[in-house]
Amino acid sequence: MTDFKNEFCMHTATCGELRKSDVGREVVLTGWAWHNRDHGGLIFCDLRDREGYTQVVVDPDCVSEEEFHIAEHLGREYVLQISGRVRARGEGAENPNMVTGEIEVLATSVKVLNTSVTPPFSIEDGIETDETTRMKWRYLDLRRPEMYANLLLRHKVAQAMRQALNERGFIEVETPILANSTPEGARDYLVPSRPNPGKFYALPQSPQQFKQMLMVGGIERYYQIARCFRDEDLRADRQPEFTQVDIEMSFVEETDVMDLMEGVFKEVLSAAGVEHEFPLQRMPWKEAMERFGCDRPDVRFGMELVDLTDLIKDCNFKVFTGAAANGGVVKCINAKSAGNWSRGEIEKLADIAAANGAKGMAWIAYTDADTELVGKSPIIKFLGEETHNAIKEAAGVEPGDLLLFAADTFDTASAVLSALRLHMADALGIERNGHALLWVVDFPMFRYDAVEKKYAAEHHPFTMIPEEDWEKIESDPLACSSYSYDIVMDGFEMGGGSIRIHNAELQKRVLRRLGVEDDQMEEKFGHLIHALELGAPPHGGIALGLDRLVMLLAGKQSIRDVIAFPKTSSASDPMTGAPNEVTGRQLKEVNLRLL
Amino acid sequence: MTDFKNEFCMHTATCGELRKSDVGREVVLTGWAWHNRDHGGLIFCDLRDREGYTQVVVDPDCVSEEEFHIAEHLGREYVLQISGRVRARGEGAENPNMVTGEIEVLATSVKVLNTSVTPPFSIEDGIETDETTRMKWRYLDLRRPEMYANLLLRHKVAQAMRQALNERGFIEVETPILANSTPEGARDYLVPSRPNPGKFYALPQSPQQFKQMLMVGGIERYYQIARCFRDEDLRADRQPEFTQVDIEMSFVEETDVMDLMEGVFKEVLSAAGVEHEFPLQRMPWKEAMERFGCDRPDVRFGMELVDLTDLIKDCNFKVFTGAAANGGVVKCINAKSAGNWSRGEIEKLADIAAANGAKGMAWIAYTDADTELVGKSPIIKFLGEETHNAIKEAAGVEPGDLLLFAADTFDTASAVLSALRLHMADALGIERNGHALLWVVDFPMFRYDAVEKKYAAEHHPFTMIPEEDWEKIESDPLACSSYSYDIVMDGFEMGGGSIRIHNAELQKRVLRRLGVEDDQMEEKFGHLIHALELGAPPHGGIALGLDRLVMLLAGKQSIRDVIAFPKTSSASDPMTGAPNEVTGRQLKEVNLRLL
Repeated sequence: MTDFKNEFCMHTATCGELRKSDVGREVVLTGWAWHNRDHGGLIFCDLRDREGYTQVVVDPDCVSEEEFHIAEHLGREYVLQISGRVRARGEGAENPNMVTGEIEVLATSVKVLNTSVTPPFSIEDGIETDETTRMKWRYLDLRRPEMYANLLLRHKVAQAMRQALNERGFIEVETPILANSTPEGARDYLVPSRPNPGKFYALPQSPQQFKQMLMVGGIERYYQIARCFRDEDLRADRQPEFTQVDIEMSFVEETDVMDLMEGVFKEVLSAAGVEHEFPLQRMPWKEAMERFGCDRPDVRFGMELVDLTDLIKDCNFKVFTGAAANGGVVKCINAKSAGNWSRGEIEKLADIAAANGAKGMAWIAYTDADTELVGKSPIIKFLGEETHNAIKEAAGVEPGDLLLFAADTFDTASAVLSALRLHMADALGIERNGHALLWVVDFPMFRYDAVEKKYAAEHHPFTMIPEEDWEKIESDPLACSSYSYDIVMDGFEMGGGSIRIHNAELQKRVLRRLGVEDDQMEEKFGHLIHALELGAPPHGGIALGLDRLVMLLAGKQSIRDVIAFPKTSSASDPMTGAPNEVTGRQLKEVNLRLL
Repeated sequence: MTDFKNEFCMHTATCGELRKSDVGREVVLTGWAWHNRDHGGLIFCDLRDREGYTQVVVDPDCVSEEEFHIAEHLGREYVLQISGRVRARGEGAENPNMVTGEIEVLATSVKVLNTSVTPPFSIEDGIETDETTRMKWRYLDLRRPEMYANLLLRHKVAQAMRQALNERGFIEVETPILANSTPEGARDYLVPSRPNPGKFYALPQSPQQFKQMLMVGGIERYYQIARCFRDEDLRADRQPEFTQVDIEMSFVEETDVMDLMEGVFKEVLSAAGVEHEFPLQRMPWKEAMERFGCDRPDVRFGMELVDLTDLIKDCNFKVFTGAAANGGVVKCINAKSAGNWSRGEIEKLADIAAANGAKGMAWIAYTDADTELVGKSPIIKFLGEETHNAIKEAAGVEPGDLLLFAADTFDTASAVLSALRLHMADALGIERNGHALLWVVDFPMFRYDAVEKKYAAEHHPFTMIPEEDWEKIESDPLACSSYSYDIVMDGFEMGGGSIRIHNAELQKRVLRRLGVEDDQMEEKFGHLIHALELGAPPHGGIALGLDRLVMLLAGKQSIRDVIAFPKTSSASDPMTGAPNEVTGRQLKEVNLRLL
């Protein structure tokens, strides 16, 4: 492949490519004046472009008086075009921390392509400027090398994804952004239609319905790097719009999708410089919940949940026995080396338990000095020695350990201990380097929504149920499994998918179970049902969160760092000012007024 | 590259791949029952998938009784999985019009994966079903081979575009869909923001401002296959949302962009099976207007405009001399072989002239028999022989020719004759095979908008003006040229671009000339102006209409045929019913009510 980077532009070399072997070359560089300094009658300027930076030397003997004057008065972030000759740096002046550190360019011409006023913050990596300021001047923030590196990584990941899918017979199809309101799911963004007064498009929460239509349409293998929209309150890893690698295949079973995707993941990770073992573990949902308390376990460290429900039945601690008697569970995690924490420090952890629904948090601490494992805790006296010993054995207790307990429903105990597990891993500085991917499979089809007092779909209403469970849809919905799979990376749900229902009658049974009345079926789901009646093939797919994947690969804490122009937590863009007020005429055209 | 098409799925061969060399192979096929027939005690079924179709033979001696019964009762578009053995067709039974026509598959197992009710129209190419019906059952429409071919071509073109740009150092960056209302341009689609009552996002008409910000942000080479939105009344080649290949480069002049893009075009066209000569012609805007009457000439045929203004000055035809005296022009086209048309047929062409602003349409017809070129026309007597002869010579008249005249302002005469030229090419069946690309360059910076009584930007307000014309911005705006270029394909504007203004002061001068008051400058264009003040590099780019490009390459008349889920002319989707009514609660959440 030819290197086109220096073709069709004003430079003959980038600021990141010159090496000792280029000494003697006449080059033209363009870029931004990064660090300028005056030393021994010469002007030194680190000229920066997206590829790196190169030291330029301006010697009054080699340029015109006017150009030397320009060089003496360079401002930060001036845009320059430098002609000059590559020369080796003098002995001792080499900079081994800089890829171009063996050379410098002696300018023969200095041209200012544009000036700059003083930037509101430094164009440097690792700045501590508050994020809103960075977003207001996003075009300056993006000039920082680490931000360009993030966008470049995103590009590489997206292209590797495309290439891997193209090779596997997938075709990319664009589906509408001006779509229809979905009856299930999160809140939609609405778009009024001018020629249809009182009617609205909805921005798609995902292309789910369209990709199923494409399968019914015989496309067989589809993907799209698709923009999706959810009008939800924002969190660190949520944005009003986000990007999903959306994939669907026909004539497949769930192992086909997972097997194929592992090949794709391998190539994509490799493009990002990450080598991971394949095939991946496939952990049943139930096992993930039991061992880690959550369906997106970070398996890069242990501290797994220990089930004590059977062990504590005969003790005198009513919190434990009561939970067990009510059909709940008693579980704990063992936080190694936290047994030496003060009582105050330990009891603060109860806040985390409470935030996840616990009424309290029992604990037992064993200091390093406690070689007999006597333990310290208000609850020991209630447990009795036999039960305490059984717990110690089950949890593998050693001196220095801290046991944290949850006694509650399975769901609450899982949420509490999962949160405590992750908190303790951070608090104890447990290393979570590298990346760990695994599948979590076989999610239950339904869950009971106690607030809405009805069944909801655990994945989504279009997920296929194993044939042997069909009879339970009406009689015992919580016992219905589903052909579903999440791909989990480093404790994040990186994607999820399922085999879909391709049988119209089955789809209607599931929708009825979810509370869709027969007389709403046509209005809400008519086009899907009709499509399934017209020769829908067996099909399934997956959707991956591109923002989150790139965030993890870039080692960042927020997806905002891997999005060129993200929104703030109030869903606004400080750079453009969006969202904005509009004129009365604009509102009237779409038949609306403000409340 | 491994062929993954038969991996990770329920089939071991596609319906388009089996040849004589596969005879004897045991295969599993999946697909749709296309044409089923009963012949000599055997059942024949053409099984279709996206790759093609294969004849399956079901012999009662080779399958179970139950399976034969199934085969006897196959409905159209049933979804099947067929196991069987490839065998050569008998002598005389080969079908040379079918790529798999040398073989057939003798079924050993017939499995119905899904049934189908009778489709509302035939799954065949070239159907005459009305388009709304096709759009309502789009998933069936897409099963027609020609529709899949369109989507496949679109995929190939998009991927070739990406690959060509990736190789040239471009990175794909996603810019927001929830963007800000643009003060210039077409009508925006609005999206109310829930956390910001009374405020709205606008869906982007193009990523123009964001791509300029990316250049200021040092990205240097950016592209995006971007969704764009315009709330305009629809035409055959317009959709509410459309797709643009959006490209921007830093440190470039206009020839850099055009030269680079020609390499990209070459690779993209080649991926679509089209070989075109490069480099492309670069025709100044003025020349395009003079020779073809429009800035997107179809140069695949002649019939160019002939300027007669100087020739007719002394004749007695007041319509001509009046136009010339008022600073207008008199021009004609010569429609070869239309000179034999009846007077009635010829005079109907005046409707086209009128629709383009002419007050009338003069003409002279020369029949094949008119070897002396006497001509027939009401105007000959006013022209006088000398002028008539001069016109004949200028227009190269031969027997059988028809001259059509326009005498008006330059703009109106151009519009009239351009429309007549295209009409006559169609009417005369002039061949316009193959593809012709050219650049139209050097558009004027400004035009005068007589309705709004102010200057408007011919391309857009961010286009760079050659430095020698800067002084004319205030004194003689219509004389200002610009660094702009359109890429024209087969008479369509396939894309357009320009070098952008990177100097804040110049940008303000242009905006003032366009009527932006100084006190609106900050509110409307503040973030652009600030960005230009903070080290904006010289930059420029181009945007290509992907829908239109694929439409032309596919040889279709409408972009709807190359969009998976297009909207109707009332901007609705008959399949999903979008746009829809929403609930009062949804409106209230975004602080709105209907008028």
